[in-house]
Amino acid sequence: MKTVISVSGSDIGDKNLSKHSLDLAEEVGREIARHGAILLCGGKGGIMEASCKGAKEENGITVGILPLSKDEANRFVDIAIPTGIGNLRNFLVVNGADGVIALSGRWGTLNEISFAMIFKKPLVLMRGTGGIVDEIVDHRIMEKIESEYYITDDAKEAVEIILKKSDNLKHL
Amino acid sequence: MKTVISVSGSDIGDKNLSKHSLDLAEEVGREIARHGAILLCGGKGGIMEASCKGAKEENGITVGILPLSKDEANRFVDIAIPTGIGNLRNFLVVNGADGVIALSGRWGTLNEISFAMIFKKPLVLMRGTGGIVDEIVDHRIMEKIESEYYITDDAKEAVEIILKKSDNLKHL
Amino acid sequence: MKTVISVSGSDIGDKNLSKHSLDLAEEVGREIARHGAILLCGGKGGIMEASCKGAKEENGITVGILPLSKDEANRFVDIAIPTGIGNLRNFLVVNGADGVIALSGRWGTLNEISFAMIFKKPLVLMRGTGGIVDEIVDHRIMEKIESEYYITDDAKEAVEIILKKSDNLKHL
Amino acid sequence: MKTVISVSGSDIGDKNLSKHSLDLAEEVGREIARHGAILLCGGKGGIMEASCKGAKEENGITVGILPLSKDEANRFVDIAIPTGIGNLRNFLVVNGADGVIALSGRWGTLNEISFAMIFKKPLVLMRGTGGIVDEIVDHRIMEKIESEYYITDDAKEAVEIILKKSDNLKHL
Repeated sequence: MKTVISVSGSDIGDKNLSKHSLDLAEEVGREIARHGAILLCGGKGGIMEASCKGAKEENGITVGILPLSKDEANRFVDIAIPTGIGNLRNFLVVNGADGVIALSGRWGTLNEISFAMIFKKPLVLMRGTGGIVDEIVDHRIMEKIESEYYITDDAKEAVEIILKKSDNLKHL
Repeated sequence: MKTVISVSGSDIGDKNLSKHSLDLAEEVGREIARHGAILLCGGKGGIMEASCKGAKEENGITVGILPLSKDEANRFVDIAIPTGIGNLRNFLVVNGADGVIALSGRWGTLNEISFAMIFKKPLVLMRGTGGIVDEIVDHRIMEKIESEYYITDDAKEAVEIILKKSDNLKHL
Repeated sequence: MKTVISVSGSDIGDKNLSKHSLDLAEEVGREIARHGAILLCGGKGGIMEASCKGAKEENGITVGILPLSKDEANRFVDIAIPTGIGNLRNFLVVNGADGVIALSGRWGTLNEISFAMIFKKPLVLMRGTGGIVDEIVDHRIMEKIESEYYITDDAKEAVEIILKKSDNLKHL
Repeated sequence: MKTVISVSGSDIGDKNLSKHSLDLAEEVGREIARHGAILLCGGKGGIMEASCKGAKEENGITVGILPLSKDEANRFVDIAIPTGIGNLRNFLVVNGADGVIALSGRWGTLNEISFAMIFKKPLVLMRGTGGIVDEIVDHRIMEKIESEYYITDDAKEAVEIILKKSDNLKHL
């Protein structure tokens, strides 16, 4: 069965979303596809759309877990799964994957990051993408208390961390 | 975006599951794939596995929404999405689809049937497959109160009912 | 800790809801309170409101698990807990209780009945209340396949069945 | 209908949980009860238990939304509602309340904080309680991006902020 990697990050309405973050999300999508993994995300705009676009450029498969309706999906989503539970669908973006890569983001992304930590999913934070991700990275949030996230600014490394960790989990 | 059709029915542990029901589930899977739709299901054995097998014979795409872990998926599932919420994942099998086709089944299938009616999803009951589906068909359950389900024993017709209904919904 | 008993049944919009069913729901509410148990329900009208009214007449405690907002609660609900997940909240009405008593009802009640069976909660169907409950009772639905529900037309007996069963569950 | 206030914070296993935080949680519970509100929480130990203890000292009502079973409830919970969905029950602790008061905490508390922000619930962070709450307060997390939380170290003020905000929400 193929590895599933989630991409978490700001929707299109986030004014602080930079071109750099969107470009990096696209590259993350390309790397997920190049490594033969399936891209899972919340299916909407911004970081989610950029990563789906990248995955499709490399002939990957993209799955979008949507709040209420298929109509919310960006045009690079192959398989749109509406849930009817609004933003609570975030937990499915995390639980449905073998690991999560987060870029930029606000409270919704922080919600997915916290679910990743609670459900012990490998989590990679993309340094330099702004938003909540850089706030966690800059202030080393929860590092002194408990921390199991990885930090990188390289898309290929991010994907390979998830693949390696999820492979290790299988061999426990 | 591709139409998504769910198949609901007994898992492998159901002693009353007949060869006829399994054969028909396989044919339903083939028809879903022949019509270019994606097959969504609970990802496990019995009716779910038979329908996935049929879809793969016709090069279709199969998605399994699993209770807890990817390991629960049958071998014909392309994209396995574990949810971590056990049998409560039934609502996603319904909400994630444009319509539901049910065969045989017990309380879990009845749970998905009731969700389909609550969320106004087109529902087709496959007559002659035993279990809760035939109990509803035989006794015309809820018909006098409120009823929006369709009854057939033909796999092709079942798929075409969903496609027609979901297409109509789009044009409301 | 106090025993929690759920009452499941038609909301106010159900045209087939009889005065007899509403009176019996009220008596079920009174019996729940008389036995020192807490009444849990979906918090809305019809059967839910009648049972809460009965419980309050006997100084019981009533809890309503609501689809979206506190404003949906009937006036006999002491503790209103909105969920934000619409009718999916049904699973909480079942999982939150030690057992379920169902009267009349349509697809929503059938949804709660199926959850009760899936999650192995003691379930009592009140015979003679019409709706889906009498359809299950009259046609002995799922009895030949698998069945663990109880049938009575007496409110006191219904409550005592749940109390006895949930007490037995504790001593397993 | 009574106002419902949630208390969010570390469970008993958190080594960094201070006596000061537990004492303050108890005082928050007392203030909730003194103001005639119902205390809602995740029903377990640590901050949750301390706040329930305080509420009972002032004859308040306490409700615990539990991961899997009533047996997980602390001894100061009046009404225990198991959900069967594990830590995903966090969203109910937030959605079920008119506002949330958070003390100390780790990823689970951060999960509830992020839900409070997503669902636009009034949120008060208790300064000086350590854990994720003080990390957010110290680094003004998300303040530059979007922020609607309140900060105080006074239990009475925390409760009154929620009461005032939720009353305002009713009059919109």
